[in-house]
Amino acid sequence: MYEEIVKLAREQRLNDLRKRLESINSADFPNLFEELDEDVVLIIYRVLSKERAAEVFSELEPDMKEKLIHYLTDTELKTVIDELFFDDEVDLIEEMPASVVKRILSTVKPEDRKTINELLAYPEETAGTIMTTEFIDLKEDMTVEDSFRRIRETGLDKETVYTCYVLTIDRKIVGVVDIKDLLIADPQALVKDIMNPHVITVSTLDDQEKVAKMFDKYNFLAVPVVDKEKRLVGIITIDDAIDVLQEEVKEDFEKMAAVHPNDESYFKTTVFKHARNRIVWLILLMLTSIITGAILNNYESAFVSLPILVSFVPLLMDTGGNCGSQTSTLVIRGFSRDEIKLKDFFKVWWKEIRVAMLVGIMLAGFNCIRILIQYGWNQGRLALVVGLTLLLVVMLAKSLGCILPMLAKKIKIDPAIMASPLITTIVDSCSVFVYFQLAVLIFGL
Amino acid sequence: MYEEIVKLAREQRLNDLRKRLESINSADFPNLFEELDEDVVLIIYRVLSKERAAEVFSELEPDMKEKLIHYLTDTELKTVIDELFFDDEVDLIEEMPASVVKRILSTVKPEDRKTINELLAYPEETAGTIMTTEFIDLKEDMTVEDSFRRIRETGLDKETVYTCYVLTIDRKIVGVVDIKDLLIADPQALVKDIMNPHVITVSTLDDQEKVAKMFDKYNFLAVPVVDKEKRLVGIITIDDAIDVLQEEVKEDFEKMAAVHPNDESYFKTTVFKHARNRIVWLILLMLTSIITGAILNNYESAFVSLPILVSFVPLLMDTGGNCGSQTSTLVIRGFSRDEIKLKDFFKVWWKEIRVAMLVGIMLAGFNCIRILIQYGWNQGRLALVVGLTLLLVVMLAKSLGCILPMLAKKIKIDPAIMASPLITTIVDSCSVFVYFQLAVLIFGL
Repeated sequence: MYEEIVKLAREQRLNDLRKRLESINSADFPNLFEELDEDVVLIIYRVLSKERAAEVFSELEPDMKEKLIHYLTDTELKTVIDELFFDDEVDLIEEMPASVVKRILSTVKPEDRKTINELLAYPEETAGTIMTTEFIDLKEDMTVEDSFRRIRETGLDKETVYTCYVLTIDRKIVGVVDIKDLLIADPQALVKDIMNPHVITVSTLDDQEKVAKMFDKYNFLAVPVVDKEKRLVGIITIDDAIDVLQEEVKEDFEKMAAVHPNDESYFKTTVFKHARNRIVWLILLMLTSIITGAILNNYESAFVSLPILVSFVPLLMDTGGNCGSQTSTLVIRGFSRDEIKLKDFFKVWWKEIRVAMLVGIMLAGFNCIRILIQYGWNQGRLALVVGLTLLLVVMLAKSLGCILPMLAKKIKIDPAIMASPLITTIVDSCSVFVYFQLAVLIFGL
Repeated sequence: MYEEIVKLAREQRLNDLRKRLESINSADFPNLFEELDEDVVLIIYRVLSKERAAEVFSELEPDMKEKLIHYLTDTELKTVIDELFFDDEVDLIEEMPASVVKRILSTVKPEDRKTINELLAYPEETAGTIMTTEFIDLKEDMTVEDSFRRIRETGLDKETVYTCYVLTIDRKIVGVVDIKDLLIADPQALVKDIMNPHVITVSTLDDQEKVAKMFDKYNFLAVPVVDKEKRLVGIITIDDAIDVLQEEVKEDFEKMAAVHPNDESYFKTTVFKHARNRIVWLILLMLTSIITGAILNNYESAFVSLPILVSFVPLLMDTGGNCGSQTSTLVIRGFSRDEIKLKDFFKVWWKEIRVAMLVGIMLAGFNCIRILIQYGWNQGRLALVVGLTLLLVVMLAKSLGCILPMLAKKIKIDPAIMASPLITTIVDSCSVFVYFQLAVLIFGL
């Protein structure tokens, strides 16, 4: 496919090229551009229709956008910017370096600059930052026929025409009409008689993740955004909601693996930035491990007189860590899927305690038998110490795996940081302490 | 809100109740029902219109559906089932126990039974299982006016009317028309002149996750599903795609925390099932820890003569585990976001090696200085052993964190199982070995 396109471009057979490009979805252009030389990219980009050029542009990665802007003339850039939806324009401005932003803003129509500045002013991660101000508004006393006329006149530039919003004179939202309802209604019927007056809205300052989750729950295609005075100021469409959901999942995975979250993709992130994103947590977690080491140190006389004790340390540490991660992951994900709430604390804990008993008894039993077989039937005390510690460690790990994320949620920090790595190192300290304390007691060391 | 509804229901003020319920979104009914007694639930459910009843029904959790079916008369059940979309009917049949399925199937119209059986026959997790067979089909030589008539006549029961599919006589798909395009076209224009002939389709046997990701990439609202003969057999709508994405994320989180994936929610899963989902991995991982223990055992004479060595074991194990999880999580997520591909292996490895060098040198440096301060300036050899091991362990952990998921992908098993817990235990064995080997060499033990 690539060869053919490159050939058409190099031979300046622009009409054939335009035709060939028609069959390529806008979302496939970023991959195409990555593979081609810049001069070919530019030829391709210039034969696209202006609507298509804007569509393709908004699909590109920030660095490709920047390159392209660099090569476009002011007039070409203006055409692209004019065609972009407001939310894409705002994204662009947020992504580009200051010098490029200046050039972009100089091409924006003065009447649009106000809207963009307003959109830029919303705090990060709020509904305001992902909404677009382009939607179809109807009035209650319009007929269905009027409505279709309005959609035809204004609809083409709107991000979605599937849902129309019914506003009062002072732009307060009083209803929504699905285009499906307009299609089956009598052309003379009034909008107010067919609209659904039970509108679910979100506020400009609502958290974008909360809003994105509503799409999943309510199967919305778009949701209206209102300001403090309850006036409709924009809508959020489902494609942007999905992006937010994906972004939040990425962030959660990173946090749960002790990596500082990062907006950029893996390859776009430099080695230094990768190192920086990881070192902070590694050092923090290392401090906890040093405490575990100090505890071990404390029991030096115990393990010098009974060295076999040391060989169970990895088993206890790893099992504790794994049990803790299992629980903390389930609890953290339960929170973000709204399956688990803070008020369920005791319900979750009680469930985990019972799971821990079952799992702990199995693991302890397995190891007691193994020890007796491997080290001889006279090693009953060793089996007792290891088995008992395992049971206690599993119960402790599962308790902490449930308590710490709950606590984080309670004091309003992201429970995701209470994931595997932190739980593991904390459980490690406890396991080593419990283990040697029991050993000292039972063996009388 | 609940009190008012309960009052209206108990007092049999059904008209007021119906009115009150109108303002509640169908997606909010599951929470409402969870809070109410079964007799009140039944009163509420019976006052809903049949369309609403079906909508609410498909939002409920399986156990609530089962309860409701138990209380409904055969006629009532038939009304609900008739109103459901085929994909929701299939979900229902898959979720319910055999006795309930029998009752459900007895209410299904004979002509629908064939469709349902076909849908049930698709292999799990394929596009066929999440598609619905209800869509709007047009012919190429219809006019725009004809199309609107067809949408009006058949559209109301279709899951989406926003995109219409243009079929040939033998039901092969030749184009799609967005309702937006129909709205602005001349009523006498022909469908073939306004349709988009570049249709992206999926096959019934495509993996559902792959299909769901296409929604994110192409911003689809629905995607057409074709059979082996390229005939259109159904469509997948965005709400079902989002459910798949969410489900896959849940599964990934579970796998990466060494929990066997589970379809049910946290609370719906019994304690025994929770234990069963966790014990398998715990035992597997334990076996690896036992190996680490055996390695430690091997160096008994070393740590008995120099007990301080033991206190660094947690530090080395934890740091190795954390570094490994960081890398493996980024690589696994990179795979599932299509940012990283198998062919990038050396690119990723080289990046990780450099990150590991940076991070390793920092951690090693930090610890060397700490050891010299804490244990005295004559402990140069100890500092050297710990520092060198740390550097090696970090590089090893980051390498394995990249190699193992890549290897899993290569041999076509899910890379998610190569996540933190497995990497951690494997890295543990290696770190302990490297550490004591270095200690024996440098201290001449």
